[in-house]
Amino acid sequence: VTTTISPKQQALAAIAELIGDAGIVALDDGERYLVDHRSLYRGRPALIVRPASTAEVADVVKLCNGAGLKVVPQGGNTGYCGGATPDTGGDAVLLSLERLRGVREVDPVGYTMTVEAGVVLAEVQRHAEAADMLFPLSLGSEGSCQIGGNLATNAGGTAVLRFGNARELVLGLEVVLADGTVWNGLRALRKDNAGYDLKQLFLGAEGTLGIITAAVLKLFPKPRARETALVAVADVDAACRLLALARRESADAVTSFEYLPRFALDLVCRHIEGAVDPFTERHRHYALIELSTAASAARLDEQLRSLLEQGLEAGWVIDAAVAQSEAQRGRLWRLRESVPEAQRAEGGSFKHDVSVPPARLAEFLTRGLAAVAAAAPEARACVYGHIGDGNLHFNFLAPPGQALKDFFASHGERVSDAVLGLAAGLGGSVCAEHGVGQLKRPLLTRYLDPVSLRLMRQMKAALDPNDTLNPGKVVPPPVP
Amino acid sequence: VTTTISPKQQALAAIAELIGDAGIVALDDGERYLVDHRSLYRGRPALIVRPASTAEVADVVKLCNGAGLKVVPQGGNTGYCGGATPDTGGDAVLLSLERLRGVREVDPVGYTMTVEAGVVLAEVQRHAEAADMLFPLSLGSEGSCQIGGNLATNAGGTAVLRFGNARELVLGLEVVLADGTVWNGLRALRKDNAGYDLKQLFLGAEGTLGIITAAVLKLFPKPRARETALVAVADVDAACRLLALARRESADAVTSFEYLPRFALDLVCRHIEGAVDPFTERHRHYALIELSTAASAARLDEQLRSLLEQGLEAGWVIDAAVAQSEAQRGRLWRLRESVPEAQRAEGGSFKHDVSVPPARLAEFLTRGLAAVAAAAPEARACVYGHIGDGNLHFNFLAPPGQALKDFFASHGERVSDAVLGLAAGLGGSVCAEHGVGQLKRPLLTRYLDPVSLRLMRQMKAALDPNDTLNPGKVVPPPVP
Repeated sequence: VTTTISPKQQALAAIAELIGDAGIVALDDGERYLVDHRSLYRGRPALIVRPASTAEVADVVKLCNGAGLKVVPQGGNTGYCGGATPDTGGDAVLLSLERLRGVREVDPVGYTMTVEAGVVLAEVQRHAEAADMLFPLSLGSEGSCQIGGNLATNAGGTAVLRFGNARELVLGLEVVLADGTVWNGLRALRKDNAGYDLKQLFLGAEGTLGIITAAVLKLFPKPRARETALVAVADVDAACRLLALARRESADAVTSFEYLPRFALDLVCRHIEGAVDPFTERHRHYALIELSTAASAARLDEQLRSLLEQGLEAGWVIDAAVAQSEAQRGRLWRLRESVPEAQRAEGGSFKHDVSVPPARLAEFLTRGLAAVAAAAPEARACVYGHIGDGNLHFNFLAPPGQALKDFFASHGERVSDAVLGLAAGLGGSVCAEHGVGQLKRPLLTRYLDPVSLRLMRQMKAALDPNDTLNPGKVVPPPVP
Repeated sequence: VTTTISPKQQALAAIAELIGDAGIVALDDGERYLVDHRSLYRGRPALIVRPASTAEVADVVKLCNGAGLKVVPQGGNTGYCGGATPDTGGDAVLLSLERLRGVREVDPVGYTMTVEAGVVLAEVQRHAEAADMLFPLSLGSEGSCQIGGNLATNAGGTAVLRFGNARELVLGLEVVLADGTVWNGLRALRKDNAGYDLKQLFLGAEGTLGIITAAVLKLFPKPRARETALVAVADVDAACRLLALARRESADAVTSFEYLPRFALDLVCRHIEGAVDPFTERHRHYALIELSTAASAARLDEQLRSLLEQGLEAGWVIDAAVAQSEAQRGRLWRLRESVPEAQRAEGGSFKHDVSVPPARLAEFLTRGLAAVAAAAPEARACVYGHIGDGNLHFNFLAPPGQALKDFFASHGERVSDAVLGLAAGLGGSVCAEHGVGQLKRPLLTRYLDPVSLRLMRQMKAALDPNDTLNPGKVVPPPVP
């Protein structure tokens, strides 16, 4: 009697052998790898591996690619779109980058840092700060998300207005390609036109074209002064005008400009311990504004005062609460940062992560709310976010007493059609900062133009002809 | 008797018919299209066409791609590497974008401008300024280079330190693909993760993957204050330390940080009318520093003074000439900007456009000069440039009385090997800001790693399988 071992089984055995016990997670112990952050998906991989080096990542990918196995890379598993969760087919290797935790170099002359993919974002920030510099990427999940995942998803966050998305914070990458080849693009150069800028292929591609194992990051001078204010504004249009003025008045020191409606502030004050509305009067719209600078001789306080005075005169600003201490600053930021948690406490939200050109924001909000009010009059709008980037989280809660799932099972499609169709019609994006993953792949088929889809498929076919890397993510399948 | 008309001839006739007389340049009148800026190449195309719209560009490309003709796009024809000059095979259509001159939109709320490829860079700058904003890309040829060419070559210039290369100044593109399809990626979004960031494919690809016909550009608040100084520094290492300090002291308001050696200043003072060394003593090294800000309440003068005082104390700064008026500022900048002209007046220079990580600059300069002194002791070094980006123009002049061509015919290879080999060895680039074109394609074969070359060829094959677009440029042919 001969037992036949398939090529896939052989490859899995070779991987287990190669990586060793410390790098293998038993599927039964793998809950935190198998289920995504929002509990939308549960993957069923053949194996969970945690390689300890770039060379080990390369070996795993090579073995998988040769045997017809798939590879699903995973960072901190904090994504919103199931981009790091394998399907249930059982022929994927879930590859966690969490053991690649080296900080290879911090360069205070060149303002760069070279880190491995598994370093947690907050850790990157701390290393920069320890060297009197700033790594400006900042998001809610920074305590657990990993820099490799941030780069693979081109993460946004609250400082995009001044410093750009994750893509713009990278000078070089090291990447494991679909056949297991290591591409060493770890250059720390501000100017390099020696051929195509290959790192761009992998930034934001969510592991479908290559697996990022290390990166050279751009650093900036550490801010020495900061001014933070919660400003009651007349409406979203007023907020946008105030932003344009703020950029001008402050030498582009506006690092954050976030929008909150009354409803979101109420939710936060209701559900988050210690959260208090800093105004005595109730207003309808708020902007959280932060200016910061590394200059020693700056006059940020004067700039903010002048900005608010001009805003008052123009009728854009109604009232303002300016933080007088780091503690007060923390409390203002908490009002903004607690919105997701407050939504969860209220029963969860039906989310849309959309962006439009800033000049269309007011129109987008007005028309979007009207369209949803027509499609689902009882839905409660909680629209907030990074107004400075034209990026609103266009979320809706179920009516009080109704379960989110039930309500949006019947109303969700019409609501989404209204919001996403309008965003696309205004020249916007239906996936602004949270990426595509598996959740939003159908949106691309619907809202992206055929030429873009064709280009994406051409790139995928060219760089990963066997569809080894993160299959079923980002790139929509050809229409049959 | 039947006359056979080949498919190529048919396509050429169809293009001539389609574009009309106003869009065709007779080869005999085409000198300025046929010869590159440095007179290194003379192309022999089948036709010179000047389409008047994106649709016409698309039609031309479609006809060429179908008939086996090549398309060589050309902007202002100011490139240094022959990237816009066809070969002498006679089966290329030279496609000038100069009639695509529309400024489609200026958006003061979103800080963006949508322009067509043929708009001259200085014109883009003027449109931004007229709307009280800044388009920061700035280069010597800005009066004649076109924005499409700037984006296709990912141009650098003197403001990269603060604002990035051309690539980083783009939000969206419109591109004609190799088969004549128009890709409309003209989005004005700060956050858009709906699939791969396709515009990155075309930025810096020098027209080999698609022809840029229009772009959405990022604008910035217009500077209101500026401080400019020519600083005599102890050496290049001191200059680098001063730069790191300047970034910290000035809230990253350092927009330019340029290096000049004594030799370059002498050349300029000798050949350029009105150029005067502002110092009474002769120094060996100079940095031209400019701080600028859009802030109304900034204290740039204080910041500069503090910077120079600290630099003096540290021994990095020896003396400084601070511009007290716009006229003085112009004179200081002229010393830097006239170096290329002064080199030409002295008989021309043998050029290398290289970059290294800023922390390696001093080492690069010392070792590079020593290596060249060993290889060609009589060569006169004129090394200057964008020290803030790690980008030096590592140029050499022939000994007095000897012709550039003659001298470097015998010494050039050893000099280049020394400079480029050292740059590559220090983690640098052999094509920093001037691109690759046809001139530097052999350098990529020699200095780029095989994985990068493979990725470039895969992209070219995927997006332009017939090698229709700008053949013979950028992508090295496979090794036989």
